[in-house]
Amino acid sequence: MPQGKPAVVPDDGLTTKQRRNRPLLVVHTGDGKGKSTAAFGLALRGWNQGWKIGVFQFVKSAKWRIGEQTVLERLGRLHEETGEGGPVEWHKMGSGWSWTRKQGDAEDHETAALQGWQEIKRRLADESHDLLILDEFTYPMKWGWVDVQDVVETLTNRPGFQHVIITGRNADPLLVEAADLVTEMSKVKHPMDVGQKGQRGIEW
Amino acid sequence: MPQGKPAVVPDDGLTTKQRRNRPLLVVHTGDGKGKSTAAFGLALRGWNQGWKIGVFQFVKSAKWRIGEQTVLERLGRLHEETGEGGPVEWHKMGSGWSWTRKQGDAEDHETAALQGWQEIKRRLADESHDLLILDEFTYPMKWGWVDVQDVVETLTNRPGFQHVIITGRNADPLLVEAADLVTEMSKVKHPMDVGQKGQRGIEW
Repeated sequence: MPQGKPAVVPDDGLTTKQRRNRPLLVVHTGDGKGKSTAAFGLALRGWNQGWKIGVFQFVKSAKWRIGEQTVLERLGRLHEETGEGGPVEWHKMGSGWSWTRKQGDAEDHETAALQGWQEIKRRLADESHDLLILDEFTYPMKWGWVDVQDVVETLTNRPGFQHVIITGRNADPLLVEAADLVTEMSKVKHPMDVGQKGQRGIEW
Repeated sequence: MPQGKPAVVPDDGLTTKQRRNRPLLVVHTGDGKGKSTAAFGLALRGWNQGWKIGVFQFVKSAKWRIGEQTVLERLGRLHEETGEGGPVEWHKMGSGWSWTRKQGDAEDHETAALQGWQEIKRRLADESHDLLILDEFTYPMKWGWVDVQDVVETLTNRPGFQHVIITGRNADPLLVEAADLVTEMSKVKHPMDVGQKGQRGIEW
């Protein structure tokens, strides 16, 4: 079904087209798998639409590199080579973001997370991307490193047409309230519960 | 974290490597978004590992084409051109599968679904793919078009090393029992509830 039928037609004075084309704030939360994977799946759709994709991974390890990064960066190069799809930027926090030249203190994740958010604020103001994926961004909010109120206000008032996806467990209620689309991924059964280890192609 | 730590180390006589490298039966179910999108996200990881990817979409409309199909098929051509990643096949039921030459009766989805499953059984026996995505395959089971017991037995006894992902609402309890990894995607909030229509890049 290419177009869902809305349950309610709102009395907001907007045309169907205006209503269809609204930038979304999407949250993938819960303790199950698939929060980030579904976000990167949406990046495929966005790339196919020619969108400028920006991924910001709030992970602590700089070494950690998943298959999606390799493939989405490859798609970004394909865009440069052939004009297909859209450009892709992938930034990872690790012990400091790629746009900060200095090698920061590897332990100071709090500073790194805040720098990440400040850069994202600048990019939102500049409308640098059409789709921003803030992967595992719920954690710096949960830990108080990034102010939830600031995030919610910034996202609510972002200019232009920018879709934003935030992933991670324990999404703050304020963030859920501000979001347009919230999905909870719950674990029903996981191989690690029965001693299975993570494996290539599935976990990374 | 590239490798999860298992909660239990089973007394099964297997080495860690044997235990790590086990073909998984994965189910994405629930009424929320992200079931298929997360499956296609996993296909990115698999492609990056050089896996042979087979996608089988049990959707009724032949017209319905999502961005992931375009991008994954593009990645399949990239594999042919450069050897990067793995090959990709994408089959859609519609009113008949691409491998059946004859134009079947467009209304006879039951026959089409059963033909799809029979082809998948042949491919599983032949170990044609490393990752099979059976998208929206819970529905033909729910409607009794495909026998759940047959699916569970076939998947439980599949040879070699083939990961299988099944998506769709209302996964049968027998399927959940047979699966290694089951995630439920639940809707917390959806834009269509407040009258928002589906939109390009998000829904397709």
